[in-house]
Amino acid sequence: MADYPELPRESTSTRRQFLKTAAFGLGAALTMPACSPSPALARGDEEKLGVALVGLGNYATNQLAPALEHTEKCRLAGIVTGTPAKAEAWSQKYSIPQTHIYNYETFDHIADNEDIDVVYVVLPNSMHAEYTIRAAQAGKHVICEKPMALNARECESMIAACEEAGVKLSIGYRVQFEPHNLEAMRLGREKVFGAVKVIEASFGFRLQNPNQWRLDKALAGGGALMDVGIYAIQAARYVTGEEPISVTAQEVKTDPMMFKTVDETITWQLEFPSGVVANSTTSYAAYVERFYASCEQGWFELGPAYSYSGIQGRTHQGPMDFPQVVQQALQMDDFADCILNDRASKVSGEEGLRDVKIIEAIYEAIATGGKVSLV
Amino acid sequence: MADYPELPRESTSTRRQFLKTAAFGLGAALTMPACSPSPALARGDEEKLGVALVGLGNYATNQLAPALEHTEKCRLAGIVTGTPAKAEAWSQKYSIPQTHIYNYETFDHIADNEDIDVVYVVLPNSMHAEYTIRAAQAGKHVICEKPMALNARECESMIAACEEAGVKLSIGYRVQFEPHNLEAMRLGREKVFGAVKVIEASFGFRLQNPNQWRLDKALAGGGALMDVGIYAIQAARYVTGEEPISVTAQEVKTDPMMFKTVDETITWQLEFPSGVVANSTTSYAAYVERFYASCEQGWFELGPAYSYSGIQGRTHQGPMDFPQVVQQALQMDDFADCILNDRASKVSGEEGLRDVKIIEAIYEAIATGGKVSLV
Repeated sequence: MADYPELPRESTSTRRQFLKTAAFGLGAALTMPACSPSPALARGDEEKLGVALVGLGNYATNQLAPALEHTEKCRLAGIVTGTPAKAEAWSQKYSIPQTHIYNYETFDHIADNEDIDVVYVVLPNSMHAEYTIRAAQAGKHVICEKPMALNARECESMIAACEEAGVKLSIGYRVQFEPHNLEAMRLGREKVFGAVKVIEASFGFRLQNPNQWRLDKALAGGGALMDVGIYAIQAARYVTGEEPISVTAQEVKTDPMMFKTVDETITWQLEFPSGVVANSTTSYAAYVERFYASCEQGWFELGPAYSYSGIQGRTHQGPMDFPQVVQQALQMDDFADCILNDRASKVSGEEGLRDVKIIEAIYEAIATGGKVSLV
Repeated sequence: MADYPELPRESTSTRRQFLKTAAFGLGAALTMPACSPSPALARGDEEKLGVALVGLGNYATNQLAPALEHTEKCRLAGIVTGTPAKAEAWSQKYSIPQTHIYNYETFDHIADNEDIDVVYVVLPNSMHAEYTIRAAQAGKHVICEKPMALNARECESMIAACEEAGVKLSIGYRVQFEPHNLEAMRLGREKVFGAVKVIEASFGFRLQNPNQWRLDKALAGGGALMDVGIYAIQAARYVTGEEPISVTAQEVKTDPMMFKTVDETITWQLEFPSGVVANSTTSYAAYVERFYASCEQGWFELGPAYSYSGIQGRTHQGPMDFPQVVQQALQMDDFADCILNDRASKVSGEEGLRDVKIIEAIYEAIATGGKVSLV
């Protein structure tokens, strides 16, 4: 982790103090009076929590910023970018004042900006820990993209920093707010078709641009497994409601040039206390995207299972009938609600840590060729 | 293997001699004159090869016998059963004369029956080798159900016995004659969507009757893997057109009472020379039935993939459009054609042996916890 300046906790804003007070009070988010609205505020925006996006890459640009136009409790209040041209373009597109635009040198001054309540870390994986901790120390609640960090030690530092700063932390597990995935959780956990016995959960895509941070272990920490395999790990956990007790894993690499430092294709098997086995595949070489659970008296599946849109589901009884949603909008609104009502997020830092521990165990299982215990 | 009487090769029939001669001639199956038709022959049946089913269990009763009413080049000519009541019922239902009904003591006399050209071994797995070899020594061509036998050694004995007897041998791999699976073969082998990169192939069902030979290792040789997992092995091989070079495998058992001697749920990973990885699941605890192949420029899948009927397929371009067929009828007719035209079956004994070797390697990988080489 890089050094970062220690910022005084006193720098948190008056509006923040109000929000914290309100959160412990009646939680009347919708009746909350406006306190020093920024120039960027539209009608009604004074009631919303201000979100600053840190890192204006593809996901921030094409998913999060548009999603923030669908949120009820959040608004895009600031940006952090090292690219002046991006700052200019975003400023114009989203009416973000210069006072709400930071770069990586000025980032910590975000502590002084009372319009910004939440920092959303959308940086390459290797920067998640540093910027989550710096945001916490700036007194901001934090959403950190998945994977939470490069290893469990970093995750634990992030959780500790947020606890110490008295801010909330959540991970960008958007599909936990998606109706088909929520239905899969219900079918699995409530044993609607009897106990789940076998799971197949896989997510991969064909990565074709060789010039991206995903292929650089120093930035990404790992390959397909950390990037998209994590969705399959998540799904196996949230559908069973169990934590795996052991894992075996295997790796195949067909393009050692392109995937010089990160994994290309990994298969793994999670064993759960009830005996459920989840067999999974992730890949940067091929598209695969499915969740399937077979139960004692039926089955259910999602496919596409984890996409930004177009998720569909089926059971042995027929197709699921749920609307398409803006997953990130629901995810961010839920986090705002957690802040306003001082409740824990279901996609907490601890939840992110659990997955990173499993990812570490998968890499260990590949390295040792053996079964790795998770208990 | 049990002892069995050595039957003289001279006992093969006149009609058989004719068939062999015809096979090496013009292969004019449809113009073949009738030679000593049996009392059971219907109009046109004299042109068909006579098939004797050995073992009148569920598959023979509900699949093979009905399929034989759809064959163009085969007919049900005889039965072998240890249960007199079954003999009586089948005799009545299919007009099978007493002279064409055998039990396991009289089985070898089938050599004297010139109406019977093909013996179809539908017995529990542990009896495949013995009855295939006895059938060969009786001068009959043989179809043996999958898995071919309990181990590679038995398979090799069966191949040798058929070669020595000058009879053809094939394995009951019906889905290799099913249009959706044939299309999957074409898409994979001809690289229609580019090279296959990742395969997920799984087959399992929920076995609920505790009183059956499938649960007895002495009869079955193994559990879900040998019974239905073999379809996933087959599919990975016939879609890639490659032979795997190594395998890893894992076992989970949630009901050690019911699955005291055989495997309940196994996951395995086949690695192919081109780098394709096939990740598979088989189970007696849960229904799972799918073949999925992800390629460089698209994907294709089957699901249900291996059933007797109802197989469907899709690609990234949309659903496949192929008719439902009587797989076993096509399979048996193809074998008849192999006999009549003296050509090799694509579902040969060697093909069965390859799968059994992989099954042995999967069990070895489970036992050792390591990767098992297949080359």
